[in-house]
Amino acid sequence: MLFWDLKTGAPKKGVPYRAEAIGMLSEEAFRLSTSDAMGEYLAYFDEPDRSSSLDSIMKALVRECRKEYDKYKKIPEVKYKEYVILTSEAECVWEDAKKNNDFELFKPYLEKIVGYNLEFIELWGYKENKYDTLLDLYEPGMTVEKLDAIFSELRSRIVPLVAKIKESAYQPEDQFLKQYFDIGKQEEFGLYILGRMGYDFDAGRLDESEHPFTTGINPGDVRITTHYYPNDFISAVMSSMHEGGHALYEQNISADLYGTLLCDGASMGLHESQSRFWENTIGRSRSFWQKYYSRLQDFFPEQLKDVTADDFYRAINKVEPSLIRIEADEVTYNLHIMIRYEIEKALINEEIKVADLPGVWKEKMKEYLGIIPPDDTKGVLQDVHWAGGSFGYFPSYTLGNIYSAQIYNAAKKEIKNFEELVEKGELIKIKDWLAEKIHKHGKLLKPEEILLQVAGEGINPKYLIDYLENKYKEIYKLEF
Amino acid sequence: MLFWDLKTGAPKKGVPYRAEAIGMLSEEAFRLSTSDAMGEYLAYFDEPDRSSSLDSIMKALVRECRKEYDKYKKIPEVKYKEYVILTSEAECVWEDAKKNNDFELFKPYLEKIVGYNLEFIELWGYKENKYDTLLDLYEPGMTVEKLDAIFSELRSRIVPLVAKIKESAYQPEDQFLKQYFDIGKQEEFGLYILGRMGYDFDAGRLDESEHPFTTGINPGDVRITTHYYPNDFISAVMSSMHEGGHALYEQNISADLYGTLLCDGASMGLHESQSRFWENTIGRSRSFWQKYYSRLQDFFPEQLKDVTADDFYRAINKVEPSLIRIEADEVTYNLHIMIRYEIEKALINEEIKVADLPGVWKEKMKEYLGIIPPDDTKGVLQDVHWAGGSFGYFPSYTLGNIYSAQIYNAAKKEIKNFEELVEKGELIKIKDWLAEKIHKHGKLLKPEEILLQVAGEGINPKYLIDYLENKYKEIYKLEF
Repeated sequence: MLFWDLKTGAPKKGVPYRAEAIGMLSEEAFRLSTSDAMGEYLAYFDEPDRSSSLDSIMKALVRECRKEYDKYKKIPEVKYKEYVILTSEAECVWEDAKKNNDFELFKPYLEKIVGYNLEFIELWGYKENKYDTLLDLYEPGMTVEKLDAIFSELRSRIVPLVAKIKESAYQPEDQFLKQYFDIGKQEEFGLYILGRMGYDFDAGRLDESEHPFTTGINPGDVRITTHYYPNDFISAVMSSMHEGGHALYEQNISADLYGTLLCDGASMGLHESQSRFWENTIGRSRSFWQKYYSRLQDFFPEQLKDVTADDFYRAINKVEPSLIRIEADEVTYNLHIMIRYEIEKALINEEIKVADLPGVWKEKMKEYLGIIPPDDTKGVLQDVHWAGGSFGYFPSYTLGNIYSAQIYNAAKKEIKNFEELVEKGELIKIKDWLAEKIHKHGKLLKPEEILLQVAGEGINPKYLIDYLENKYKEIYKLEF
Repeated sequence: MLFWDLKTGAPKKGVPYRAEAIGMLSEEAFRLSTSDAMGEYLAYFDEPDRSSSLDSIMKALVRECRKEYDKYKKIPEVKYKEYVILTSEAECVWEDAKKNNDFELFKPYLEKIVGYNLEFIELWGYKENKYDTLLDLYEPGMTVEKLDAIFSELRSRIVPLVAKIKESAYQPEDQFLKQYFDIGKQEEFGLYILGRMGYDFDAGRLDESEHPFTTGINPGDVRITTHYYPNDFISAVMSSMHEGGHALYEQNISADLYGTLLCDGASMGLHESQSRFWENTIGRSRSFWQKYYSRLQDFFPEQLKDVTADDFYRAINKVEPSLIRIEADEVTYNLHIMIRYEIEKALINEEIKVADLPGVWKEKMKEYLGIIPPDDTKGVLQDVHWAGGSFGYFPSYTLGNIYSAQIYNAAKKEIKNFEELVEKGELIKIKDWLAEKIHKHGKLLKPEEILLQVAGEGINPKYLIDYLENKYKEIYKLEF
């Protein structure tokens, strides 16, 4: 709640006091979750006789509490505090470094952050690969071994796809998206679409912030934000649908799980699959705009009067290698993630040094996307994640895309006339299916268990690649 | 923060969870402030040697902590919890009772609340009059003896003043205030006036809520709310200035006091003096509108084109005995307070019973204001205070008016060309004077100490009565 307020309109002179309040509450939460009392509770429930008699919720809850407890308890409290202070300082330094294209400024902080992560891995332990321990924080069960295979398959088919798209003679025209679009109307349209998706406004609200986010304050209060640009209409709509997807997940977690660690998404990847599903699979589909494009034209008659639904569909799906991850299209996006994955893996395994990062970044950009950033601001300094200490997080985005494609494939099989529902704008039925299959479980099941139930198999990047090839073959008239 | 959010836009399905969170945090705060550790700290500082070596801030802090500690510690925890639950239930029941004009529904709750208050008074102790103990909660040092004298003086001159006003042939015409006024423009004008008063928008914000309020989250974050009515323009402006007055107090408390019990107003009455000063003394003055009326006409040219500044000034100062306290004018307002004071005093001294209230209310309304409410909704059930257990609070409103008049009198002596500053709209100089004389002290000084420093004497209702007589003599062309 304090964080949401800070990002949506807290007065600036209150910020230092607010930071103090957030710090105090975080410390208290840390203290409670690593207390001797928590240790005793966990030991109590670990007794084999008791453990086996627990119901499924209690069993999962003990599992998650144990995970949290071990994660924090293994780190000396002093060290953890130092790290929290370091990363909050580093985020400020990173902002300056990014603004001034000054990697050297950020370097000593990043070196320390990597150092702490290496220490934490020693304390937490690891089996095959040190980086596995970090991956597991965000995607339980994920490993370098699995990811290497997944990314290798993606790479082998996406890099050629990007090349073919680049060579196509049928490049979409998207200049009309850069006209002036009234922000009030942008908001109104976003609210309209969110309503159609089944986002419950009695259990949430939409506000504006610098960077869009979703926050589940409680099951009856899941808020989303977006950011409006007067000359880039599609950004706000897509980020509203993206955050709306995250929010549907949180709004539909079973009420039984409220107030426990299970009242959350099963993993970052699965959470991201829901935002990607709504933003890309639905929000950038021909069927969706078949229904809503004329509605959009009602909102912006002047701007869109000479634009057909087909022009519009092609424009919002334009593929182009670009420098900035968060602005990347559906196809090249995963290449941005691969670059970060490989860098993190090498850093954590001490195969490269922080000082090497700007150079490695440029090499990899050239290798995967064929372009080289002119500076570090548009290169290695673009993302906040490392400043905040989030190593192992980036792969979640691509995992989200992969899960989303697998879920889409299952949905088309299980929901009668799936495409027809989208064409008619009957999105609530799709939301209900997702809620029943995925959302309601919260963190009760592990991500792989949910995927197995929904898709009938484990993670498989084939569906994402097939989806991308089929979609873009049609848009760019490619031959295979 | 949680309370502000609840009142300004929290989604309704989150309310029960929010209530739980607020309850948990309140209980924790209660537990800490009555803990054995707090008792030990207080005992430590009570040692005469230590006590005398404390600086003024620490001395006042120990005094306030002791007061809080004794207040809560003397009540058994179980009883306090019962009372918190009772009053929160009673507030809901009161809402229904008010809506349905059903005093009988509310009666058993009010009887219990009075019962608990009588028990608390026994536990807290009292000297002269049981009601003194409750008065002291809101206005430290205030007693029935003092208030009886104050109210008697007020009554002896205000009742005749109201009668003369009623008989005057020069009644202001205020129908034009009931036209349609665009809410966006109302908000814009309110923001403009708040800025002129010196309300710091980098340390606050203005929102809408059902009932206007001010909340000081921290010294850099003091938020106000107002309520817009499309057909009653003056209500929102006046409540913005009223809450703005409270907010100026909190924005200007010395930063030294942040995070302590001293970072608050000296008393409810003194806090109210600041809101009343800005709402009435400034906001309903001829000098103020001499500057801002033409500005107001710029905002509402259609509605105000045939209304002169003098018409406007007289309209917003129309005096008329009415049923509802919060809608009452400056003159009759204090009579509404007297009625509540006398009822509370009699209830707490067990001279009347809760069952007598509807009848007593009507008698007193007839006696003081010459009108009788047609039902309890517009009578004894109109205010939420008793449902929430706030006995002893009502006199703060009139004390605020009295203090405000004394402060006004002092300001006119000390600030060169006071009226001229108001006429020129140089309100910041007045705000700075109030900040220096009153606001910065927070709760470091007692209300009577502040008043003595500012006005050179203790509480004296003469200034309020003189102010009212002079002002309304002119508006209604009265003869004395």
